[in-house]
Amino acid sequence: MSDKRVLYDLAAADPDRRFSPYCWRTKMALAHKGLPVETIAWRFTEKDVIAPSGQPLVPVLVDNGRWISDSWTIANYLEDTYPQAPSLFGGAVGRSLTRYYATAADALAPALARMLVLDIYERIDDKDRAYFRQSREKRFGMTLEAAVADREARLPAFRDSLAPLRAALKTQAFFGGENPLYADYAVFGPFQWARCISPFRILDAADPLAAWLQHLLERFDGLAGKAPAYY
Amino acid sequence: MSDKRVLYDLAAADPDRRFSPYCWRTKMALAHKGLPVETIAWRFTEKDVIAPSGQPLVPVLVDNGRWISDSWTIANYLEDTYPQAPSLFGGAVGRSLTRYYATAADALAPALARMLVLDIYERIDDKDRAYFRQSREKRFGMTLEAAVADREARLPAFRDSLAPLRAALKTQAFFGGENPLYADYAVFGPFQWARCISPFRILDAADPLAAWLQHLLERFDGLAGKAPAYY
Repeated sequence: MSDKRVLYDLAAADPDRRFSPYCWRTKMALAHKGLPVETIAWRFTEKDVIAPSGQPLVPVLVDNGRWISDSWTIANYLEDTYPQAPSLFGGAVGRSLTRYYATAADALAPALARMLVLDIYERIDDKDRAYFRQSREKRFGMTLEAAVADREARLPAFRDSLAPLRAALKTQAFFGGENPLYADYAVFGPFQWARCISPFRILDAADPLAAWLQHLLERFDGLAGKAPAYY
Repeated sequence: MSDKRVLYDLAAADPDRRFSPYCWRTKMALAHKGLPVETIAWRFTEKDVIAPSGQPLVPVLVDNGRWISDSWTIANYLEDTYPQAPSLFGGAVGRSLTRYYATAADALAPALARMLVLDIYERIDDKDRAYFRQSREKRFGMTLEAAVADREARLPAFRDSLAPLRAALKTQAFFGGENPLYADYAVFGPFQWARCISPFRILDAADPLAAWLQHLLERFDGLAGKAPAYY
């Protein structure tokens, strides 16, 4: 039986620079499951390429001909379709408890985007820039340049907002326990996004979250750590 | 074998008004486990009464002669000591994943306290008031009256901060899934605290979190719902 798996994966102008937080969740989940995947560099404006998924956003996984979108939907699909592979959730209760990790990590995105958006703009493909500037300037209600202008001043409050994540890791290596689970990959996404697309340091090197991040970067033979990034 | 269990439970001047968010976590956990408990009204300044626990804060559980403090430690103690009773965590992975719920819920406390602190002060026992005012005014760097003065203006931002919790409940009834687990009780604590000690409405009635809260109030024959509260 042939086993063909393709992931449409957001890329910068450099096709090797893959930076979507949601795509990173999916790539870590696929690696956790031990499922090989071919990733295809995809740009914001290539909506037609992923049209068979019925929506315009990545990650989009094509798993042996089945199109699946949305990182949470994909994680659930992988867990249900490949139950013999290592579990992403640790059971039904774990799956329910993991949901909030994804929504809490999603909630980091606006504050991060406010700090990173100009770096993103400068690195994405030329053909994406008009779309990106227009949509993000509408979202922020200001120019990209204005959005990031006070990012140094905003950083301490953002780091403070991570206190509950930090506190949870005081007594365990990963949110999932001794080993990472999808809850970890869900939170990992935004931090990997940041380091792949911007030299602006989100975490202080002494932050326990930086140590947790480093462990995840080394997993799966350095899947995330070897990817093009700024630190 | 005798089975004797006592919980020191923070009370207002009215001994039936029990409002500690951390004590509520423990009471829900005990009820979940089906473990009867005698709760003893305890006031902030009665440090000597719980001195055998080796620290000055409630909840303090005395379980057949063993003194245990700290709501998270108590939850783990109950799970390990009564493994035949319904699980609070749903297994080892669930326990690890639950930790962040407690730290995230703890992080709600400062913003809530800023809105509720004068209502607390007005309802606690006379003997607690000097201690309470002094410690809380030091914490806030202002009088209790000044701390709450702009609470109406602060409420929308607090409600916005609940978006990730709200989002997680879009697709499931409880954080634990179809039925509540300790993760739910951990988050429940701060909301029960608010309604037990203050008429100031933290949640809009139409908020999905209000429906989730209502379900928890009805659990265990209305353990939390029948307790003295303002709404």
